[in-house]
Amino acid sequence: MNVLLVYAHPEQRSLNGALRDFVVQRLEAAGHAVQLSDLYAMGWKAALDADDNLDHQPGARFDPSQDSKAAFANGRQRADIAQEQEKLLWADALIMQFPLWWFSMPAILKGWVDRVYAYGFAYGVGEHSDSRWGNRYGEGTMAGKRAMLIVTTGGWASHYSPRGINGPIDELLFPIQHGILHYPGFDVLPPYLVYRTGRIDQDRFEAIRDELGQRLDNLWQAAPIPYRQQNAGDYEIPALTLRPELAPERVGLGVHVADFEG
Amino acid sequence: MNVLLVYAHPEQRSLNGALRDFVVQRLEAAGHAVQLSDLYAMGWKAALDADDNLDHQPGARFDPSQDSKAAFANGRQRADIAQEQEKLLWADALIMQFPLWWFSMPAILKGWVDRVYAYGFAYGVGEHSDSRWGNRYGEGTMAGKRAMLIVTTGGWASHYSPRGINGPIDELLFPIQHGILHYPGFDVLPPYLVYRTGRIDQDRFEAIRDELGQRLDNLWQAAPIPYRQQNAGDYEIPALTLRPELAPERVGLGVHVADFEG
Repeated sequence: MNVLLVYAHPEQRSLNGALRDFVVQRLEAAGHAVQLSDLYAMGWKAALDADDNLDHQPGARFDPSQDSKAAFANGRQRADIAQEQEKLLWADALIMQFPLWWFSMPAILKGWVDRVYAYGFAYGVGEHSDSRWGNRYGEGTMAGKRAMLIVTTGGWASHYSPRGINGPIDELLFPIQHGILHYPGFDVLPPYLVYRTGRIDQDRFEAIRDELGQRLDNLWQAAPIPYRQQNAGDYEIPALTLRPELAPERVGLGVHVADFEG
Repeated sequence: MNVLLVYAHPEQRSLNGALRDFVVQRLEAAGHAVQLSDLYAMGWKAALDADDNLDHQPGARFDPSQDSKAAFANGRQRADIAQEQEKLLWADALIMQFPLWWFSMPAILKGWVDRVYAYGFAYGVGEHSDSRWGNRYGEGTMAGKRAMLIVTTGGWASHYSPRGINGPIDELLFPIQHGILHYPGFDVLPPYLVYRTGRIDQDRFEAIRDELGQRLDNLWQAAPIPYRQQNAGDYEIPALTLRPELAPERVGLGVHVADFEG
């Protein structure tokens, strides 16, 4: 199978750098093909702007989504964007690896999403009508592909636990896992998380590597997070609210997971 | 009073550009001083890297937090970072204005947070011990200052409602409002939100401007979101989990709001 690893850490000789090398080796040893997008090493341009549409005329008003739509449709995107889209189309699975900075991804990785996720590619796909609100949340360009996050953080697991002060990690990652991965169609596997990165000795590093290795070995068999599909009957259209008989009386991010036990 | 407006949109002739101009005029007309950080116009460097520590030696291992700590302590941060910190110290209130891209802020604004929020300035502040886990979540450098988000999005309000498919807007914004604003000490006001930006005619624009104007007039009187303080007794330290008698049996982001009614 084909795996795209999108990786965002500024120092190669870091825990993240070591885990990145391990991921590539483990997957290749199992016979998979891997492409690595090492965003810092590539000098990835983080800010989406008018230069991303090669047909944009100096002085013309720039509309982030309409310019993206035109550039994608006309084959006039900047080459770096088109190359990343090709990698996504090639991949059977996407892994995003990053340190959690301020409860989200580093800016350079957010800029990969902002720019590569073009109109017509990752959004604005499919029919928009009173009965169908585009191919998204389980459908779309990435349907049939898998995705998984590998995230490191300095905080303790308890700080990210269901009653931890930072918020539960699955809810902090919802905008990424549901909003960035499930939205264009990926099946999203549970994330692999490393806490308390300031305290990693050789024993713990080996334990992490073993655990992560098993997650990689199981990439094609693991059960995805059962996020609901938008167009399969669970939501009222066009309001896109969960039908009243599902997770009745409940609110919040958790209701979008199908086996949510209210 | 002094207001810092941090603004992230690539096109001046946009809805966001018009609202930004309105914010500046309204605040100045009320006698406040305003500084504007227009990140696209400034060509803000989004990616945190070794160049942010002027003392970093070529070839030396870069540690994002340790290099940030040393550069801040030694007055050897890149000038653009130090200038933004000065603006934050000057400000009585911070307004962050941005379009919601992929359920979060544009990369260029995330890069402002990643870089300006230095170790010793926005985190790693205060005593870390068994009884006190730093000055954060209600304490810290920004204590006594107010903050508010102004966020625009193409989606409908119902899509971001308590049972809407995108997730409730207050939970999607939790990593920003709680994790980026409350963390270094800001009192966080409810956000000002504009939905369905593709359908704004002159009447609706004027209604939005009136509403936003009232929010700005009320900036110093409005009640903040009652996020809990870390060190005021609500959390077990060092686990930093909410004490069992508070919001008993409940989990999730909402338990960190003090008037949460389980």
